[in-house]
Amino acid sequence: MKLTPPALLWRVANRKQIFYLLDCKEKGLPMYETLKQRIKCPELHEKIRSSSEAASYITPGMTIGVSGFTLSGYPKEVAKALAERSHRGEKLELTVYSGASLGDDFDGLLTRAGALKCRMPYQTNTDLRNAINEGKVKYVDLPLSLMSKWVRSGYLNHIDVALVEASSIDENGNIIPTASVGASEAYVACADKVIVEINTYVPENIKGIHDIYMTELAPNTKPIPLTKVADRIGTPYIPCDPSKIVAIVQSEIPDCGIPETAGDEDYNKMSENLISFLEKDVEAGRLCNPLPPIQAGIGAVSNAVLSGLQKSKFEHLTVYSEVMQDSLVDLIECGKVDAASATAITMSKEKMKAFFEKLDSLKGKIVLRPMEISNSPEVIRRLNVIAINTIIEADLYGNTNSSYVGGSRLMNGVGGSGDFCQNGGLSIFITKSTAKNGTISSIVPLVSHIDHTSKTVQVIVTEQGVADLRGLNVIERAHAIIDNCAHPKFRPALEKYLRKASVLSDYPAYPYSVEAAQMFHGSV
Amino acid sequence: MKLTPPALLWRVANRKQIFYLLDCKEKGLPMYETLKQRIKCPELHEKIRSSSEAASYITPGMTIGVSGFTLSGYPKEVAKALAERSHRGEKLELTVYSGASLGDDFDGLLTRAGALKCRMPYQTNTDLRNAINEGKVKYVDLPLSLMSKWVRSGYLNHIDVALVEASSIDENGNIIPTASVGASEAYVACADKVIVEINTYVPENIKGIHDIYMTELAPNTKPIPLTKVADRIGTPYIPCDPSKIVAIVQSEIPDCGIPETAGDEDYNKMSENLISFLEKDVEAGRLCNPLPPIQAGIGAVSNAVLSGLQKSKFEHLTVYSEVMQDSLVDLIECGKVDAASATAITMSKEKMKAFFEKLDSLKGKIVLRPMEISNSPEVIRRLNVIAINTIIEADLYGNTNSSYVGGSRLMNGVGGSGDFCQNGGLSIFITKSTAKNGTISSIVPLVSHIDHTSKTVQVIVTEQGVADLRGLNVIERAHAIIDNCAHPKFRPALEKYLRKASVLSDYPAYPYSVEAAQMFHGSV
Repeated sequence: MKLTPPALLWRVANRKQIFYLLDCKEKGLPMYETLKQRIKCPELHEKIRSSSEAASYITPGMTIGVSGFTLSGYPKEVAKALAERSHRGEKLELTVYSGASLGDDFDGLLTRAGALKCRMPYQTNTDLRNAINEGKVKYVDLPLSLMSKWVRSGYLNHIDVALVEASSIDENGNIIPTASVGASEAYVACADKVIVEINTYVPENIKGIHDIYMTELAPNTKPIPLTKVADRIGTPYIPCDPSKIVAIVQSEIPDCGIPETAGDEDYNKMSENLISFLEKDVEAGRLCNPLPPIQAGIGAVSNAVLSGLQKSKFEHLTVYSEVMQDSLVDLIECGKVDAASATAITMSKEKMKAFFEKLDSLKGKIVLRPMEISNSPEVIRRLNVIAINTIIEADLYGNTNSSYVGGSRLMNGVGGSGDFCQNGGLSIFITKSTAKNGTISSIVPLVSHIDHTSKTVQVIVTEQGVADLRGLNVIERAHAIIDNCAHPKFRPALEKYLRKASVLSDYPAYPYSVEAAQMFHGSV
Repeated sequence: MKLTPPALLWRVANRKQIFYLLDCKEKGLPMYETLKQRIKCPELHEKIRSSSEAASYITPGMTIGVSGFTLSGYPKEVAKALAERSHRGEKLELTVYSGASLGDDFDGLLTRAGALKCRMPYQTNTDLRNAINEGKVKYVDLPLSLMSKWVRSGYLNHIDVALVEASSIDENGNIIPTASVGASEAYVACADKVIVEINTYVPENIKGIHDIYMTELAPNTKPIPLTKVADRIGTPYIPCDPSKIVAIVQSEIPDCGIPETAGDEDYNKMSENLISFLEKDVEAGRLCNPLPPIQAGIGAVSNAVLSGLQKSKFEHLTVYSEVMQDSLVDLIECGKVDAASATAITMSKEKMKAFFEKLDSLKGKIVLRPMEISNSPEVIRRLNVIAINTIIEADLYGNTNSSYVGGSRLMNGVGGSGDFCQNGGLSIFITKSTAKNGTISSIVPLVSHIDHTSKTVQVIVTEQGVADLRGLNVIERAHAIIDNCAHPKFRPALEKYLRKASVLSDYPAYPYSVEAAQMFHGSV
């Protein structure tokens, strides 16, 4: 690192900066000038710290609110410093509130270091999941739309420190996030202290992609003035009182990214079934054309659906979702999608690099919002969003399970799917009809855990077909699901359950039997 | 009935009116002049029909959209005429969409007559419930906030005839409802034909209590401009093209009303527990004071809660609910409640009569809205509504059952409780800790049917105490519920379940066992 004489002097005058510089040197950390350029508020230059110094503001038992959503835009350097302290024997017992899932270099690292006491409101990390299932880390899975409000209302812990990744800080100390917003605006607003990790890997011209709107709390809440996906209703930064910023850390570590997922014949079939269902609903006048905005998660299923749309007749698509992945960027680039709104952009490291390179051309069609807005029941219902979510299993009553395998083993959590399926114009759940190489049916008599009740499940799609449950009663739903969604090899056993349950139940309108359901699992 | 000569002439000119008059005479029906006074649009006077003539527009297999919500404001005369036809052997096979539950002189009458094929989206009638449970009438229980939108979007049947009770018709043919709105505005808008029952028992000065606001459908939906309980954002009438009105029928039958419910010591204790919990939440700064608007259902529990509030320190209360009952009117009269919004007013016949007498003095504080607005997720979340709903049972995980006894026997349905508990600022469920004279625990290991998942259940109140589940994980929730809500005599068995489930489950963080749950029911 080359130091200009004034900068050198300035740092000499600031003892902490010397340690920072030594730390940089030791770790081969670079680019002080780049970092300074990213901090447009000169008085904040003196808050530049090493990651370990910054981490020193986080003391045992604290609750920290961190940026990050679906492995995107989470802080990395301070996490390393915290993990080191924990490995050195310090009992940190941290409560970490995030947007949603964080990368392994945060959630995995801190779990393995034994630094976590409690984690909310969502995660997807293998080591953290295991620690949660073993009862070593407390986990509370909350509808994502509520997190910001609950923190601000004092329903949860007070936020001692907000730790957020940023691409830059503006002239007034406001924070420009990186590839996700999550609940950072709430954590920054509520925290006693703010630590910012400026990630110079993320291009500075990401500024302008964000739209930060904070709702008031009751009794002053106003309508959210958002009526179109592309509407900008807030500021391009997270408002921040610069006096709350206690440390700014440099990072240049890319988000861990998600592995690229390969589709298969089943996924393509699921996508085809879904799209042909949407086409029919448009034909029947039940859906408008252009379609209402689409919400889809990340992963292979979602990729298949979005890729399918690329080949479909639908034009002028829009997306109002939690998270955007690379297939969506492809749809924007090929002109199929006019506008997309989410709270995070998540893709593989390579795709993310390419995305950053073409940021200027894409930015006009993408808005990143706080998850309170991306997942807002108000906006989702207003826009009539088509909610497409994946599940572990569905039952014959139309209940779905998206979080606990066998009723007890946590996979990830419910995340924002409830926000979308309860309020969307159409709530679609999609799954392969079988799991574990075809040995297990994803359509079961009774799901072992209910995340979404039949009231919020309107359509189920598998590679076998589509069950449109709107306006059907219990018996009709059961038959629609067996006939259209179950794998043929499991249909006889499911029908047998239904017959047995009808016999065992006193009320023919609602055949229901735990015993018969258990026999189903034994019989197939 | 005394006829003035011009009226006589006019009627002679209108053959149908003669039949009407004959019919009136035959049945002793009165007050043609009163009826005419209620129809301010003179061209509609010639649409006055006998109930059986009006009913003739309803033919077998039709779908009719009727007014009425919680036994209030439903049509009565045409129902009688339809039941007569059915008793005479006509196979009507009607699909009836309503606001919510209708009186026995509609739902019960048509069920006993065998005239119903399908009923949506809610009911509470004994005979209808039995017919549904026996599989004789199809029933689909839908979140009430969705009904209007689903009908208008074509997700459900086309409305052949809208059949609505009114207090009057204005100069332009618009309809002024009686004591409920429900989804009438949507049914009138979508129907091919409209039949109006003008109920002269309801005073005409009820005009002005209603506020009819219809949302647009996507992609034109706008924010609902409602930020305070008392806001009026629509018209005092249901817009109606008079050319759609095919018949106007006179009725003077009061709503069947609900029986007055007596509280008991347990109910008072539940109310005290709830109010002391709210007081603590205000003290802790989690709730504002004056409290956010309250939603409470009808019945003894709700009455006890509202009566408790009368004695509490809370002032300037507001109510944003589906339904208002007499205890709420008492609260308004004693000055505790500043404003109340609902889609229906329901009380005993006597109380309703008294209410009508003091309408002018109460009207300024009450707004009756379409159920799409009273139950709007957007408005409920914005106002931070305190949602208080009753349940059949709750389990240790925080799931609740409000619709199916034993998982199979329908009680009523979920109604609007999901709209409120998913979106309210605080979602409270309230139940006695035991049922069947203390022989059964309302707190169980696993509920037999899930209407509200743990994600939407934040507080459980019984006469034993309050379990505040916010921010708790699975194990903490279970202990909070056992320790605070379960009856002491069932606590050992519930703890035993938890211990057994912990042993039987591979994942200590989520003790779960269907077998152990079944043993619980055997052991107590």
